[in-house]
Amino acid sequence: MTTTPEPITFDDVRDAAARLKGVAHRTPVLHSRTLDEIVGAEVLLKCENFQRVGAFKFRGAYNAASRLTPEQLARGIAAYSSGNHAQAVALAARELGTTAVIVMPEDAPASKRAATEGYGAEIVTYDRYGGDRVAIAEAVAAERGLTLVPPYEHPHVMAGQGTAALELLEETGELGALLAPVGGGGLIAGCATAAKALYGGIRIVGVEPEAGDDTKRSLEAGRRVSVPVPRTIADGQALHTPGELTFSVNRRLVDAIALVSDDEIRAAMRFAFERLKIVVEPSGATPLAALLSRRVEGLPRRVGVILSGGNVDADRFAQLCGGTAV
Amino acid sequence: MTTTPEPITFDDVRDAAARLKGVAHRTPVLHSRTLDEIVGAEVLLKCENFQRVGAFKFRGAYNAASRLTPEQLARGIAAYSSGNHAQAVALAARELGTTAVIVMPEDAPASKRAATEGYGAEIVTYDRYGGDRVAIAEAVAAERGLTLVPPYEHPHVMAGQGTAALELLEETGELGALLAPVGGGGLIAGCATAAKALYGGIRIVGVEPEAGDDTKRSLEAGRRVSVPVPRTIADGQALHTPGELTFSVNRRLVDAIALVSDDEIRAAMRFAFERLKIVVEPSGATPLAALLSRRVEGLPRRVGVILSGGNVDADRFAQLCGGTAV
Repeated sequence: MTTTPEPITFDDVRDAAARLKGVAHRTPVLHSRTLDEIVGAEVLLKCENFQRVGAFKFRGAYNAASRLTPEQLARGIAAYSSGNHAQAVALAARELGTTAVIVMPEDAPASKRAATEGYGAEIVTYDRYGGDRVAIAEAVAAERGLTLVPPYEHPHVMAGQGTAALELLEETGELGALLAPVGGGGLIAGCATAAKALYGGIRIVGVEPEAGDDTKRSLEAGRRVSVPVPRTIADGQALHTPGELTFSVNRRLVDAIALVSDDEIRAAMRFAFERLKIVVEPSGATPLAALLSRRVEGLPRRVGVILSGGNVDADRFAQLCGGTAV
Repeated sequence: MTTTPEPITFDDVRDAAARLKGVAHRTPVLHSRTLDEIVGAEVLLKCENFQRVGAFKFRGAYNAASRLTPEQLARGIAAYSSGNHAQAVALAARELGTTAVIVMPEDAPASKRAATEGYGAEIVTYDRYGGDRVAIAEAVAAERGLTLVPPYEHPHVMAGQGTAALELLEETGELGALLAPVGGGGLIAGCATAAKALYGGIRIVGVEPEAGDDTKRSLEAGRRVSVPVPRTIADGQALHTPGELTFSVNRRLVDAIALVSDDEIRAAMRFAFERLKIVVEPSGATPLAALLSRRVEGLPRRVGVILSGGNVDADRFAQLCGGTAV
């Protein structure tokens, strides 16, 4: 009998943390009595909305890009992304003294496009419901000699994302559960690797939008299954199939997946705005939505949450959450 | 020749800080490279939007209420307020084991009314453009034997508000200027008292909405002058005359007043939302608006800002700032 080696280990996450020190923000952990009272548990919020580029994605992108050879870096890097990974790769390129080309859906939020261009990246667009972004990005990269930094299917990317959980647990000590959004699965794979290495008994709960429950279905099936391209406000989780590498980690380490509706996500964004005074984008609000809507069974006394990002512009927030204004 | 004694001293602010320890939050000081680049100075944001009740007002209300006699506390407290002071007094009452009656304008934001009632206070409403809130509150207090906790005209209230600047400067060290919103003048009176005691050379800049420039006019005239009841989105600054006690402090310690338009306030709220990922209410955004709109002359290298509150509900934010949604 043989076992496949894990794509990442806790040492990889610790190595990433050392590399990110002084480059990524050590984001604050917020706590709200009101939230605790509503949820019935002590909830500790790791605020990656305050991360550079407004999302955890900078951790993985910088960790991966910083390990390229000087020759690879000199030629430049490329990425495909629904938004935050785009900004992350653009900023990582700038920090490392090179340039980035980003393949981005035409309907990506305006603030994400503007921010990506603001970091000096070149943008190539495609139709989210038609084009194959991976093929387009691979073609662009091959043509120009660029190195692709994938959004989740890479050990260095997963390890970088895991530093969010490492920092959280260093600050909070043992937690009974950790909730994180699941899109491609890189964030939760890295976070679960770190969390279970530190505290073997921690329960890892992923959160997906109802329309994009590919990881939930895949975990139930014991193999990667696809769903139709999800139409959800959680644009960071509009993916139809789990990653191969990420799923190989998540099938071992993720204990449960909670699903949330778009209305529950909206309510969580409003709660974050009105009670916590922070801005959380739809995908970033999914774990909070799962807690507020009682979608997580057997909640322990202390729960960590990765609030993964805050990139939603004021107009879109108004459209999504401004009940009387639309 | 005689001199009038100052209504508050630095010792009063330090006493308030000791009393507030473990009761009020020591709020975080945020910093943004993007903001620094735009403004051309290092800007340090004291985030009182993360304070209990979502605004600095809890500091002064608790400091004042906590000094009442057991007999006064047993009978209960009362307040008149456009919003945040209401919540502050309601929470202070609850924390001190008593009850509060709050006189509030009919058009106060829904979230402020709900939060005030949530702390167990009773609300009495009046017409902002008709009724005399002070007279109404005094009548209610007299009738029921309650002690009024004024929103700014009280040494203990001013001293409590000053702890925001004390905490900021303890964390940042010397700053060239401190910007704070001016409504009744209690926040800036307390903050200026603390700041000038610590660093004699610090420049104190108050910020008012253009429609409510009563303190600017009063400082220019050398005496308290009134303006018509201001119609501005900055509901925490919709006052027509500076306080007597607060003006006696501010005429000595405030170096300049900057004015901002409602559109500049909206832009600052959007900036806080989209770039800083935090929620700031209109009045709380006025100092940020003054910086972003270059309304402050002779800006030094390092500037402190009191972001005084974050109580704006999502609907109102959408109406104010959701450009395409209204």
